Amino acid sequence: MPLDPLIFGFWKVDRDICASVCYEAIKNGYRRFDCACDYGNEKEVGEGITTAIQDGLCQREELFITSKLWNTYHSPEHVTLACQRSLDDLQLTYLDEYLIHFPISMEYVPFETKYPPEWLNLDGKMIVIDTDMCQTWKAMEELVTKHQMTKTIGVCNFTTQLLRQILSICTIRPSTLQIEVHPHNSQQKLIRFAHENNMMVTAFSTFGSTSYVELSMATENDSLFTTPSIVNIAKLKKKSSAQVLIRWAIQRHTFPLTKTVNSHRMKENRLVFDFNLSDEEMTIINNLNKNYRYNDPGVFCEGMGVFCPIYE
Amino acid sequence: MPLDPLIFGFWKVDRDICASVCYEAIKNGYRRFDCACDYGNEKEVGEGITTAIQDGLCQREELFITSKLWNTYHSPEHVTLACQRSLDDLQLTYLDEYLIHFPISMEYVPFETKYPPEWLNLDGKMIVIDTDMCQTWKAMEELVTKHQMTKTIGVCNFTTQLLRQILSICTIRPSTLQIEVHPHNSQQKLIRFAHENNMMVTAFSTFGSTSYVELSMATENDSLFTTPSIVNIAKLKKKSSAQVLIRWAIQRHTFPLTKTVNSHRMKENRLVFDFNLSDEEMTIINNLNKNYRYNDPGVFCEGMGVFCPIYE
Repeated sequence: MPLDPLIFGFWKVDRDICASVCYEAIKNGYRRFDCACDYGNEKEVGEGITTAIQDGLCQREELFITSKLWNTYHSPEHVTLACQRSLDDLQLTYLDEYLIHFPISMEYVPFETKYPPEWLNLDGKMIVIDTDMCQTWKAMEELVTKHQMTKTIGVCNFTTQLLRQILSICTIRPSTLQIEVHPHNSQQKLIRFAHENNMMVTAFSTFGSTSYVELSMATENDSLFTTPSIVNIAKLKKKSSAQVLIRWAIQRHTFPLTKTVNSHRMKENRLVFDFNLSDEEMTIINNLNKNYRYNDPGVFCEGMGVFCPIYE
Repeated sequence: MPLDPLIFGFWKVDRDICASVCYEAIKNGYRRFDCACDYGNEKEVGEGITTAIQDGLCQREELFITSKLWNTYHSPEHVTLACQRSLDDLQLTYLDEYLIHFPISMEYVPFETKYPPEWLNLDGKMIVIDTDMCQTWKAMEELVTKHQMTKTIGVCNFTTQLLRQILSICTIRPSTLQIEVHPHNSQQKLIRFAHENNMMVTAFSTFGSTSYVELSMATENDSLFTTPSIVNIAKLKKKSSAQVLIRWAIQRHTFPLTKTVNSHRMKENRLVFDFNLSDEEMTIINNLNKNYRYNDPGVFCEGMGVFCPIYE
């Protein structure tokens, strides 16, 4: 069964509506779900999935479920525990994909004291530690080979220098690279690098600034939805700006992540297979690139008084 | 003895004048020299050093000599051979610093077939290979501990993700990070990261575009020498633009690399200890930053039809 090109994401989906949002998404045809320990709602996603399967909306085998290893669990002895916790919360016996969430390692926070651990330890401090990511990767491989807890493994937010290092030592290659991609940060080279190394690319923040306005990490002015060239193409195609942005991602052979709690928009975001962007239109959108990243944990950490750059 | 803050670089110094340029530099007070297998002139630098020592201009112990491991020698079994070759050419029994030149590994080219190997193998192809840089680093450490071929070891052109990986596995920490730094690419975060991890930062391309105009990698328009804010500060201080740029680097606690074959400029570049840039002047220069890199081997490789990004 070919993978659905559209991934539904659970970042910032409130716990109180999360189970029903998940259920609605399945009802609206989504089969790929992007979860993470850090999103704090895997239990609710699990309830949504379980109910949907019980109601006969889909079977487990039709779903492709992603979860992510949080920064506090990079030590090999914690990788299996973290993955098991996500499986338990999601009420699953296996993941389809398990990703290292960030190339930053933080001090271990015991599961029983705080879960998800988020960015601060029990003393309210963010403690970055040196961890050999090659050993983390070896533990990720064991999730596939020894524990059968996930079908595939991959990474998020890695850049080429560290990706090459992982590729040089791995037995199981990363199947997916998940990164921020939208027309303001088109990541042409990193995507090409991933594709040439047989990684799929999951593109998060498909709509650019949208997710970040509420976090005060972007202003409405940055919106791709109102960018004239996007609006013009959308008008021409009788589509929304959102649909044009999703289509742009698909035609670049990336897998766009979208999130909405609105059932109407869930449907709208899937209506992207009845039109094509021409090479010229793709180029117009490509030319919006300004290598602008909205989601830089280094900047976020500086706001907490911790200096921890990852993209420099 | 404290390290001289000024480093004299041999990149693009022609072989036929290199020995005398080296000799002149020593005569003009330089004591730190930046060499590399890849610069193709280590024999000539060695002649210059040897003559200067013989003539009593300096003693070996006063010099700080850097060389670099080329991309084709990242396999642990080649690291010692490559370092030994640089030592032989330089007529030295030890280096003060040996750096990994780039975070790209290329197919081994036997010493006896082509030296320096440059970017293309014997068939005229650039062949990038996966190499575990942690193993390369372990071999670098043995140059210090087992072979006493170098006092310290470090890296060039690494970014934070791979630096963290090396820091997580090393026994001997990198003492230096050598990177492109000038007001158009001020690298504030990467420098801070290096300093917080007790690495010295060697700043290459101190004058920005200057070295790249002759390689058609920059135009005269990019010149920092004629940038109004630099020119104004230079006038105010009764210094040259070059001296202001060197001073800016020193006040940021980086070690600027300069290269000139002109004895007058060698002297001029050292006259940077009789003035200070104010905080305001530093800020004016810092504000010229546009994260613009002139030396990106990924771009260079694309020109040879090879896709090999390292800064993405």
